[in-house]
Amino acid sequence: MYGAPGSVARPTFRLLSLFPLTGAACVSAAALGGDISRFAHKLALREQSDMWMSTFARFALPGLQRTASATARQALRARCHPWAAAAPRPSFMGPAHIRGHQTLGSASIPLAHQSVRHVRALDEERLVEVEWEDGGHSLYPFTWLRDNCQCPLCTLESAQARLLPLSDLDIHTGVDVVEVTNDNKVSIAWPDQHMSVFDGDWLKKHCFSAAARQAMQEELFLNERYYWDSKLRIPTADYQEVLHDDKAALAWLLALRRVGIVYLKGAPGEKGQVARLADRIGYLRLTFYGHTWQVQDKAMANNVAYTSGKLSLHTDYPALHFAPGVQFLHCINQAVKGGESEVVDGFHMAEKLQREDPEAFRTLTSVRVDFTDTGTDYCDFMLQSKKRIIDVDAEGRVVRINYNNATRDSVLDLPLHRVQPFYRALKAYVNIMNRPENVVTYKMEPGDIVTFDNWRLLHGRRSYVSRPDRLRHLEGAYLDWDEVMSRLRILRKAVHGDL
Amino acid sequence: MYGAPGSVARPTFRLLSLFPLTGAACVSAAALGGDISRFAHKLALREQSDMWMSTFARFALPGLQRTASATARQALRARCHPWAAAAPRPSFMGPAHIRGHQTLGSASIPLAHQSVRHVRALDEERLVEVEWEDGGHSLYPFTWLRDNCQCPLCTLESAQARLLPLSDLDIHTGVDVVEVTNDNKVSIAWPDQHMSVFDGDWLKKHCFSAAARQAMQEELFLNERYYWDSKLRIPTADYQEVLHDDKAALAWLLALRRVGIVYLKGAPGEKGQVARLADRIGYLRLTFYGHTWQVQDKAMANNVAYTSGKLSLHTDYPALHFAPGVQFLHCINQAVKGGESEVVDGFHMAEKLQREDPEAFRTLTSVRVDFTDTGTDYCDFMLQSKKRIIDVDAEGRVVRINYNNATRDSVLDLPLHRVQPFYRALKAYVNIMNRPENVVTYKMEPGDIVTFDNWRLLHGRRSYVSRPDRLRHLEGAYLDWDEVMSRLRILRKAVHGDL
Repeated sequence: MYGAPGSVARPTFRLLSLFPLTGAACVSAAALGGDISRFAHKLALREQSDMWMSTFARFALPGLQRTASATARQALRARCHPWAAAAPRPSFMGPAHIRGHQTLGSASIPLAHQSVRHVRALDEERLVEVEWEDGGHSLYPFTWLRDNCQCPLCTLESAQARLLPLSDLDIHTGVDVVEVTNDNKVSIAWPDQHMSVFDGDWLKKHCFSAAARQAMQEELFLNERYYWDSKLRIPTADYQEVLHDDKAALAWLLALRRVGIVYLKGAPGEKGQVARLADRIGYLRLTFYGHTWQVQDKAMANNVAYTSGKLSLHTDYPALHFAPGVQFLHCINQAVKGGESEVVDGFHMAEKLQREDPEAFRTLTSVRVDFTDTGTDYCDFMLQSKKRIIDVDAEGRVVRINYNNATRDSVLDLPLHRVQPFYRALKAYVNIMNRPENVVTYKMEPGDIVTFDNWRLLHGRRSYVSRPDRLRHLEGAYLDWDEVMSRLRILRKAVHGDL
Repeated sequence: MYGAPGSVARPTFRLLSLFPLTGAACVSAAALGGDISRFAHKLALREQSDMWMSTFARFALPGLQRTASATARQALRARCHPWAAAAPRPSFMGPAHIRGHQTLGSASIPLAHQSVRHVRALDEERLVEVEWEDGGHSLYPFTWLRDNCQCPLCTLESAQARLLPLSDLDIHTGVDVVEVTNDNKVSIAWPDQHMSVFDGDWLKKHCFSAAARQAMQEELFLNERYYWDSKLRIPTADYQEVLHDDKAALAWLLALRRVGIVYLKGAPGEKGQVARLADRIGYLRLTFYGHTWQVQDKAMANNVAYTSGKLSLHTDYPALHFAPGVQFLHCINQAVKGGESEVVDGFHMAEKLQREDPEAFRTLTSVRVDFTDTGTDYCDFMLQSKKRIIDVDAEGRVVRINYNNATRDSVLDLPLHRVQPFYRALKAYVNIMNRPENVVTYKMEPGDIVTFDNWRLLHGRRSYVSRPDRLRHLEGAYLDWDEVMSRLRILRKAVHGDL
């Protein structure tokens, strides 16, 4: 029932093995961090079911590996590796590695229930200083505190939204009185008589230290990624469990975020399953190819995917300025011959390109390439977009891959002297992603659903031959990361409570 | 039936006045450009209905104003200003001005039916040179030509998509023979025996000259914008005409793109109209607030919009990483007192900020601000995003405004010393947008629909009092620019043919 599809051996493990870790992986821990260590202790001591405990421990582990104390790591390991002894190495780990936009190496995960020992206003710096029970200090700007007053006049509680308009915010305000209340909150009297009261835990979570901010950002966005190559054993879970069990669904989405691909087994062999899966999250993303779409060999195909030909590695829909973030593909019928799927980690390949051919990396992260898609499906469409093939944020971190050779436009908005360097750079990237050591190949069977990060993975398909009476048939659907991350946060809260 | 809502006088004009222009505006033409001039002549001479002719002429006019010959301008004016004499100034023009990412000032609009006079291969430069009937020359790289071979082996015609994978493209190819065919096409024999044939018009459109590329980009994306302030008379059209007449729909979408806001009059006073309007384009954008959403005063409001309070100027949904590009708001019931709408041109305000306070502009175009939205509506949601309030592209051009003070998170991912400069910068921007000379105020009546660019405009609402038995009620819907631009291109092709 459970298997990790891939080009390598297929060990069987249940949902828990979405985040398999070995003792060896844990031993690779580096510097210690006090807050993380306490957090790990707390985790280890907390009485919760083994199942979600281990799931969460694994989710938190990238940070913990580097920062938790030996005792905490031991405690965590004791909880999370009943299966580790039997698995000589993590089931999705090859020689690849973790890369994160925000690492937790030096970060403190916000801790609840921090008592306020003392508070004072630093009038000259226009900061409030909070001293915590453990002796630590945090500083908060007057303006930010006034901006985030939590009283019913300033915040609409039912929407958790700010009512105070910026035009009414005095960005030069002083404070009259700052004190700790009897119930250990921080109260501020402002010069205009307005009063604000802040909860200690809320303040602690909003600490402006680099470590606290880094931890908060990782908690909000889970930007840390596990990079992989052909040795990946694709994390696998059970379709029905994911539909009906919050812990299973959380583990699925955490792996989807971190690894970029999760395989679900055991879906009925009929249409409608990708839509059910999308409902589990929120809603799917409608596109010009419909709410869901049928990948079959079609006469007068309006997309190269709707043929029986080979599809080279690509991301879907770069002709949309905001390409779908997540893709589901459900196998209803498989081909008699061929039709194997191929995937590659586009972020990892971009990192390799940057190392091997920095000039090509610079070209693909700067040139904006035209994509086009014209036809009729859900309705008629004439799409045009302009995207960088390796999209980076303002800090130069790779955040999205946009590449589909089929819809790359004949329009190329470059001066003549930059045309050949562009082709050279693109070829260099494509050559890296086509190396056998980087590609994971698998063949879907009826009832399998592959779920993957369409902003990160490139996927392809080998050409195929179908039985004429039983055409190869996949049903697909798209979702966006905002909706997936929203469900992930809700599930994490439901499963972990107020940790 | 037709009116331009706004704080100024309301002239009445029909759909054609979506792009009103006066002689004075035309006289502001600058340098002449041969291609544009010919293009304008062609327009002027072409026998088409006055209606779409004038619409198209106005659409093309920003470029024409600057480049067309006096004769061409006169010809165009003769076609497009039967109403101009009665309108002493353009009905949506104040002292504001045109700003474009891609101006047509020096661009040549691709012209159809260019004959090829001569063709030769420049083997050393690896370029094919085409000499046109008019004496002009264009150069095309070998690699690009091979990459864009239009034969059925290389291009799937039904999908207009490239079949030739990049791995099969020889990016160092030479050419064996280049010649002009009997039917005036360019044929290339490649060293591997493959043959490509290119149409002259297709080649001309794909010319790599800066002017041709600029014109092509403007044709594809219509990035040129008309900037405005409080003197704007909002372009207005008829709801039923837009639904049923392609020329009216095209004029609507062109104005929506260029001005950022169009008012539609004459919709039935019941729910479902914004969905019909979305169907006219393609499909609407589902969000956590539903397919469409009802702006009313609600108990336990999950959004500040669902109260009767004032809403300060904002863009919708910055808590989504890809905020909806276009918004429709249909007035079903209006308040007894208050409830006036306010809009401001966020791109224009950003330009003012850059001029008046460059440091604030730098801050708002660099700091990534956290937004949050949590609640339950279509389903439960916990959204988090990180956006620049003034979003710029790699070239520093403003492409999107992301600002809603209600959903701006209390999480502020900045070191302490950058907090106060951030508030100062945001306040500077908000102060500019709140100046009376920049804000357009109008009050919607039942049956009115306002359609606007949510990436560009900030909108607000004054507080209101409703009749208890007849609550103020707007129905809203979102779309994305990709879908709107797709419909615009299709309508342009349908209305203008193969111009």
